Amino acid sequence: MSTQHLSDQNKRLSIALLTIILLAALTLIAGSSCKSPGEKPAAGENSAATSDTTAAARPSGDPLPSWNEGTVKKSIIDFVNSITTTGSPDFIQPPDRIATFDNDGTLWSEQPLYFQFFYALDQVKALSAKHPEWKKKQPFKAVIENNMGELMKQGEKGLLQVIAATHAGMTSDEFNTIITQWIDTAKHPIKKKLYKELIFQPMLELVRYLQANQFKTFIVSGGGIDFMRPWAETAYGIPKDQIVGSSGKSVYDYNNGNPVIRKLPEVDFIDDKAGKPVGIEKFIGRKPVIACGNSDGDLQMLQWTASNKLKNLELYVHHTDSVREWAYDRKSHIGTFDKGWDEAIAKKWLIADMKNDWKVIYPFDK
Amino acid sequence: MSTQHLSDQNKRLSIALLTIILLAALTLIAGSSCKSPGEKPAAGENSAATSDTTAAARPSGDPLPSWNEGTVKKSIIDFVNSITTTGSPDFIQPPDRIATFDNDGTLWSEQPLYFQFFYALDQVKALSAKHPEWKKKQPFKAVIENNMGELMKQGEKGLLQVIAATHAGMTSDEFNTIITQWIDTAKHPIKKKLYKELIFQPMLELVRYLQANQFKTFIVSGGGIDFMRPWAETAYGIPKDQIVGSSGKSVYDYNNGNPVIRKLPEVDFIDDKAGKPVGIEKFIGRKPVIACGNSDGDLQMLQWTASNKLKNLELYVHHTDSVREWAYDRKSHIGTFDKGWDEAIAKKWLIADMKNDWKVIYPFDK
Repeated sequence: MSTQHLSDQNKRLSIALLTIILLAALTLIAGSSCKSPGEKPAAGENSAATSDTTAAARPSGDPLPSWNEGTVKKSIIDFVNSITTTGSPDFIQPPDRIATFDNDGTLWSEQPLYFQFFYALDQVKALSAKHPEWKKKQPFKAVIENNMGELMKQGEKGLLQVIAATHAGMTSDEFNTIITQWIDTAKHPIKKKLYKELIFQPMLELVRYLQANQFKTFIVSGGGIDFMRPWAETAYGIPKDQIVGSSGKSVYDYNNGNPVIRKLPEVDFIDDKAGKPVGIEKFIGRKPVIACGNSDGDLQMLQWTASNKLKNLELYVHHTDSVREWAYDRKSHIGTFDKGWDEAIAKKWLIADMKNDWKVIYPFDK
Repeated sequence: MSTQHLSDQNKRLSIALLTIILLAALTLIAGSSCKSPGEKPAAGENSAATSDTTAAARPSGDPLPSWNEGTVKKSIIDFVNSITTTGSPDFIQPPDRIATFDNDGTLWSEQPLYFQFFYALDQVKALSAKHPEWKKKQPFKAVIENNMGELMKQGEKGLLQVIAATHAGMTSDEFNTIITQWIDTAKHPIKKKLYKELIFQPMLELVRYLQANQFKTFIVSGGGIDFMRPWAETAYGIPKDQIVGSSGKSVYDYNNGNPVIRKLPEVDFIDDKAGKPVGIEKFIGRKPVIACGNSDGDLQMLQWTASNKLKNLELYVHHTDSVREWAYDRKSHIGTFDKGWDEAIAKKWLIADMKNDWKVIYPFDK
């Protein structure tokens, strides 16, 4: 499926669906923050905690084996060497080694629609058994019948109805369980793989390489913070408290001695475009020295990082592989890479060409 | 000075001043996140990164030398041993080892007024040279003349005028510089010490002890996040991104290629009372297993922590030392410890009696 040839109707639909994703994220109950004792530890914290990253102790071998040799790979490694070598004029103290990564399209795929949107649609269908009246009532009927044209006609009001009706009253534990079950079982309609398998092996290597060099790695995504946290920690090795995203407001409820956090149907923060530097300042409190993105939604994050007085590196992932992944850029309805591309070229930021720079795309390709 | 004997006028004044503190915090420009290369690294990150904290490798010696032997000290050490010993039924994986600390009254003193308030008043006076008209114009005249009675008469509108007039247009770099200069030079009116010297040595030891046992330590304070970050990282060894506090809204401004974050005069988040569990969920995404506070403003944070299914510990610092620090609790205008005290007793939470449990209060007492 080529997303560059979506019909006009699909394009309009997609824009509206982006709205629903965001609304879904913003009105969902906050995910439970309580990890079960049996759950895997965050690889990132552990690797960071045990690694000695002075230049002398730097591990031998290729830190980025899934990257083809070339300018991009060399530039990344040269950068890390220059800022971690004691005595180097570009040396950066470990606390200042902050790296931020967009998620959709940068750490995992995002086509033909943001995966969080597929979650939202699946959730409507999953709840429909408890709501037999939905089969005859719009906008739910349209979702259940996969009638996207009709769903579009319902407009934003309809989308809000879907969200409000499907998520009201959910507890944080329930939400966390639902996300975890979905991410552990739901498969991508085209790739026929679990969504969580569609993460980028070369970017995983980059995250781990930076962590091994005492970088603190953060996700800074327009996606819902509560949607990402239940699975992204394990998938990427990035701790929950280093995941920044869009969110809704919430309140504490003592609940007769069994406290819960309840989400309000109000937007709290949109972590996209100009919201990304604001999110970085709010959650991290320090300007990154590395920022990685793939779309115009990441441009301000890269600008903010490029304004760091310390040596810094900006990387755009360019989706150029129509066979192994998807190929899209300036005219795509999702992950539009247009203004960002121009600025990357003008400012000589790194652009990773997925087709040519990456030996493999997904971990299962290895 | 005994704060338990403040006159009624002073009590009313104090309540209003709490308002101005918050307003000050919320309308200030966001602090710069860019650390200079020469700045000290965050001790917490470094100690956490280099420590091996398995039970077998636990360092010998007293981890809490400034704590007198007793139930509280023993309970803390027993707790840490039980949750870090591999094979213990109470073992907690490192990623779940989250500890949250209130700041004012828990990590440093807070009498006779929150130190952030002293900063706000100092800032008005510092800026008055550029505003000669303030000498004749209320509410500025009252601040410059230390006429708190008159300032009170100006009401909330007057306080807002002060804040708006003194902070509008400030850049984040300027704000960061001002906070840093103030904390490096300003002295407490009674103790005659730098404010940053009035931190609690026994709590510093507790923070480091937990970090050495692979805890991730967070500040969760009602104070301004931008007020704390420029100095708290160095003072406590808690990284900037692990400091949660009250904040104002802000926007990204590309500023012709020199991007800045500009604060809006709107409240974003009040990280106090029921806001603390919300802040924990938003910034940390995981329920703590240790929470430390000193007032009713911390009660919900301790309740939230106590609801963790993992073994957990709640600690209240009780200000009982009128000679070395201050003695106040149920009837205090700042750091009221009333409902929290009752609940701590009912639920057998730990209460550190500063007079009896702490050998020294401040680092300079050692």
